[in-house]
Amino acid sequence: MTMESTYQKIEKTVARELSCSAHAMKHVMRVYNLCLHLAKYELNVDLDVLKTAALLHDIARVKEFNDKTGNIDHSALGAEMADKILRTLGYPEKKIAHIKHCITAHRFRGKTKPQTKEAKILFDADKLDVLGAIGVARCFMIAGQYGQKIYSDISIKEYLKDNVVEEKADGMVRDISKHTPILEFELKFKHIPERLYTQKAREIAKERLRFMENFFEKLKREIKGEL
Amino acid sequence: MTMESTYQKIEKTVARELSCSAHAMKHVMRVYNLCLHLAKYELNVDLDVLKTAALLHDIARVKEFNDKTGNIDHSALGAEMADKILRTLGYPEKKIAHIKHCITAHRFRGKTKPQTKEAKILFDADKLDVLGAIGVARCFMIAGQYGQKIYSDISIKEYLKDNVVEEKADGMVRDISKHTPILEFELKFKHIPERLYTQKAREIAKERLRFMENFFEKLKREIKGEL
Repeated sequence: MTMESTYQKIEKTVARELSCSAHAMKHVMRVYNLCLHLAKYELNVDLDVLKTAALLHDIARVKEFNDKTGNIDHSALGAEMADKILRTLGYPEKKIAHIKHCITAHRFRGKTKPQTKEAKILFDADKLDVLGAIGVARCFMIAGQYGQKIYSDISIKEYLKDNVVEEKADGMVRDISKHTPILEFELKFKHIPERLYTQKAREIAKERLRFMENFFEKLKREIKGEL
Repeated sequence: MTMESTYQKIEKTVARELSCSAHAMKHVMRVYNLCLHLAKYELNVDLDVLKTAALLHDIARVKEFNDKTGNIDHSALGAEMADKILRTLGYPEKKIAHIKHCITAHRFRGKTKPQTKEAKILFDADKLDVLGAIGVARCFMIAGQYGQKIYSDISIKEYLKDNVVEEKADGMVRDISKHTPILEFELKFKHIPERLYTQKAREIAKERLRFMENFFEKLKREIKGEL
């Protein structure tokens, strides 16, 4: 069996697992392509590890989404699911361990940070896919889902001060209905470039952030009634 | 009492009525400003009628929103509410009738079409305020609210054909969860300029539509994974 057909087999397995979420599968394929693009600007990338990890990184997304206990972390469970699949496909032990590290370390808020070049590229590609017009669209869809306002003039300082529902060991729990897309942009999206590992990803992130920034500036002007 | 203080009184009454919806009140004031702007490009506008109608046009919005029977039409009820307020304020009979016509005729899907210059300006200003970045944001908030997809490749023809839940005398009832922001843009927003009455409003509408179009084009490219 050639490597190419192994990837096809993995892609089919992932597509089956994510079959109820066409969006998740499309995201996987975009991240896969972004990984290949970022890899061009890096030296000595193990493309076999990178491609396999990219295809498998969100395999546990639907399981996490459907889980009512809130205990499933799709990066941890995804690594376990990948382990079984790769073993069946005859991947060598060392590669399996490396691919599992890439999957475990791809979460933005995860404890495990990416240690290898391949894990860093996957982390970066995954973050790039939530920026730009997709990022704007997602922010407002979440706003609609949670009854948030279209826009708010509240400062970040005020928001962070007044909006704590519960203080937990791993951070504050906030009232999501008080959140707004512009706050999400200011608090999270704007800081993505500094969290990225590769130079090329940072460049793409900055370009996509400029698009988002322009959008929010235009929205602000319209809300204020500028003609 | 000067006219200026009459407007302030009306604004306060409307603000009280819309107090639970800061968004609705902000929209009212933007439409008011847009009306004044559009009026500059038209001859012989009765600014007294236009300003009063602009302030009052959405006064029944919250009542329509909270109505569980689905029978309240905020343009009809708004005209009735305006009637009472203007009578108390001593507006002459003829002006009241004209202002009521402006309010009744401001709805996009309403049966009564605007007959006077002032009614046409109010209609146009109200439609302009749903275009541009605000329009994009609203589309996606509604998408989030109704569990719609972020994007769909489905053609308008397919959507219109396959998606009818019920056929009613005044149009088809469609499955809103199958709807998407891009379809809303193609089916509704794109056709707004041809529905407007004043030249200046059509110009502003086209500029705001270009912004929306650019947004959806960028989204489409990102979804397809173009780098």
